[in-house]
Amino acid sequence: MNQVFEFQSLINRIISEQNFRKQPERLYAPIEYVMSQDGKRLRPTLTLLACDLFDGNVNDSIFPALAVEIFHNFTLVHDDIMDKAPIRRGLDTVYKKWNSDIAILSGDTMFAMAYQYAVKTNPSHIAAVLDVFSKTAIEVCEGQQLDMDFELRDDVTIDEYIRMITLKTAVLLGASLKIGGLIAGADEKAVNEIYQFGVNLGIAFQLQDDLLDAYGREETFGKKNGGDIVANKKTFLYLKAIEKANLQQQNKLTALFQSTSILAEEKISGVISVYDELNIQKETELAMADYYSKSFGHLSKAGGNHSKAEVLKQFAEGLYRRNK
Amino acid sequence: MNQVFEFQSLINRIISEQNFRKQPERLYAPIEYVMSQDGKRLRPTLTLLACDLFDGNVNDSIFPALAVEIFHNFTLVHDDIMDKAPIRRGLDTVYKKWNSDIAILSGDTMFAMAYQYAVKTNPSHIAAVLDVFSKTAIEVCEGQQLDMDFELRDDVTIDEYIRMITLKTAVLLGASLKIGGLIAGADEKAVNEIYQFGVNLGIAFQLQDDLLDAYGREETFGKKNGGDIVANKKTFLYLKAIEKANLQQQNKLTALFQSTSILAEEKISGVISVYDELNIQKETELAMADYYSKSFGHLSKAGGNHSKAEVLKQFAEGLYRRNK
Repeated sequence: MNQVFEFQSLINRIISEQNFRKQPERLYAPIEYVMSQDGKRLRPTLTLLACDLFDGNVNDSIFPALAVEIFHNFTLVHDDIMDKAPIRRGLDTVYKKWNSDIAILSGDTMFAMAYQYAVKTNPSHIAAVLDVFSKTAIEVCEGQQLDMDFELRDDVTIDEYIRMITLKTAVLLGASLKIGGLIAGADEKAVNEIYQFGVNLGIAFQLQDDLLDAYGREETFGKKNGGDIVANKKTFLYLKAIEKANLQQQNKLTALFQSTSILAEEKISGVISVYDELNIQKETELAMADYYSKSFGHLSKAGGNHSKAEVLKQFAEGLYRRNK
Repeated sequence: MNQVFEFQSLINRIISEQNFRKQPERLYAPIEYVMSQDGKRLRPTLTLLACDLFDGNVNDSIFPALAVEIFHNFTLVHDDIMDKAPIRRGLDTVYKKWNSDIAILSGDTMFAMAYQYAVKTNPSHIAAVLDVFSKTAIEVCEGQQLDMDFELRDDVTIDEYIRMITLKTAVLLGASLKIGGLIAGADEKAVNEIYQFGVNLGIAFQLQDDLLDAYGREETFGKKNGGDIVANKKTFLYLKAIEKANLQQQNKLTALFQSTSILAEEKISGVISVYDELNIQKETELAMADYYSKSFGHLSKAGGNHSKAEVLKQFAEGLYRRNK
């Protein structure tokens, strides 16, 4: 995993070298605030790993990798306004620390900045990189809209949920990898396989997030258990439970979700007891394992340098093990 | 002016041929709503006129022109949230008709769509077009931030105000023209002159907007007189008045702006009576004429086809005469 750490450090170094602190102060301070926060740098690391997998010049992919990271952070800044989320990574969100107008406008600026970085590569790859970048950006917006739409609906199916998280979360992982592959000059089949590797990995990653919210250990994961339950989020666990539940269990779940008077702790333990009756933890782990397995299938079909494919695989497995 | 009408119709036809109505419905309905509204199509028309000025293939500039129009409309969708503006072009704004979350997300989607259109041109020009496009997008955000910052300040100078409207409004007119010139393959000097033509035209255009708000005739311009005064906007007229006013006049203006109890009509007539004492209408017209004159100087230095430069000049003069 030394290669992964090396790429992560490279990205962190390049980010720290960028001048995000410009004028007007109130526009750029939030951008610097967000970009300087410690993060996993998962997406740009994937871009560099994919470029390296196909023996590309990793230097050509650094700024497009940064573009992906800035874009991702931009989506968080705007999502936090819509979700009224006060805290992210243990810190106040931009909308909370400043206000929503500033969060809108700083986000817009980050989006444009992301495009400035996306084109800083070998000119022969600019059109292809931008094609993936814009298409993905639109899909991420579609995913966020579906997520908001689902809050108003009681008949969301698991297929629809998978489609939503694919758009909202998974395609950006796919795009991060595809951009790296494109810059390395990999052929169409290879970049499409590496894209699918990322998309399936992303779906698994989100299912795991859903699972950790209900069953994860707070001390290792940092998030409080049951947040999704308190927020009435229709996660994979909830939808699977509704699907498998008998009438009595369905009524119990619905009542717990609709109740406004019940204590958060009671609501969480009530919902989890239904999940337990229905073996939802196991069901989710199975679905997750299925997407992980699909993703590895695409990775091996993508080809590229064997030992570097191994690095990517280990990196993905590391993500898979993050709850253990 | 037949050429201008022809280009405007071409843009309207191309816009009507685009499919903005996709799924999810709640994400795309606002985009179709905004894009199908009648507008002057000023910016994309400038792109086509500039491409034509330098004898470029106008077909190559149609989609980048559309990109500029979509970008402009995106900024309006987001600005209307920040400005809490309920009405635009006589219709409910997106944030009012739907809600601010939808306005944020539909706007973000439009921004990404704008980039998709911006790259639909001759591949050899993509990098240069995007360079102008992203730089301008960031400047427009900076201008909007300065505009919001100025609301909280009492010491804004006229120079700062000109800088703000340059960023918020004028650079996009410059960029619209520059993109057309770049696609036509005009040389660096020529595209920079056509850019400056647009920037100076844009400043004049905004000063005229300020003027029309106080002195325009409602029946011809459609907007209610005095909106800027009611909203305490520090326009060129206000800043010029503060600059020229004696102590008594300054106090009167400040008191009128700070008053929360006075009737709108009284506030407007009170402020305008100070403007009249100080000859502010004339002062603004002089400043406007100065920027128009500068813009025409840059236009003649830009070169290009003589008869087509004449079309652009007449188009600009048409904008100048819009209050008469």
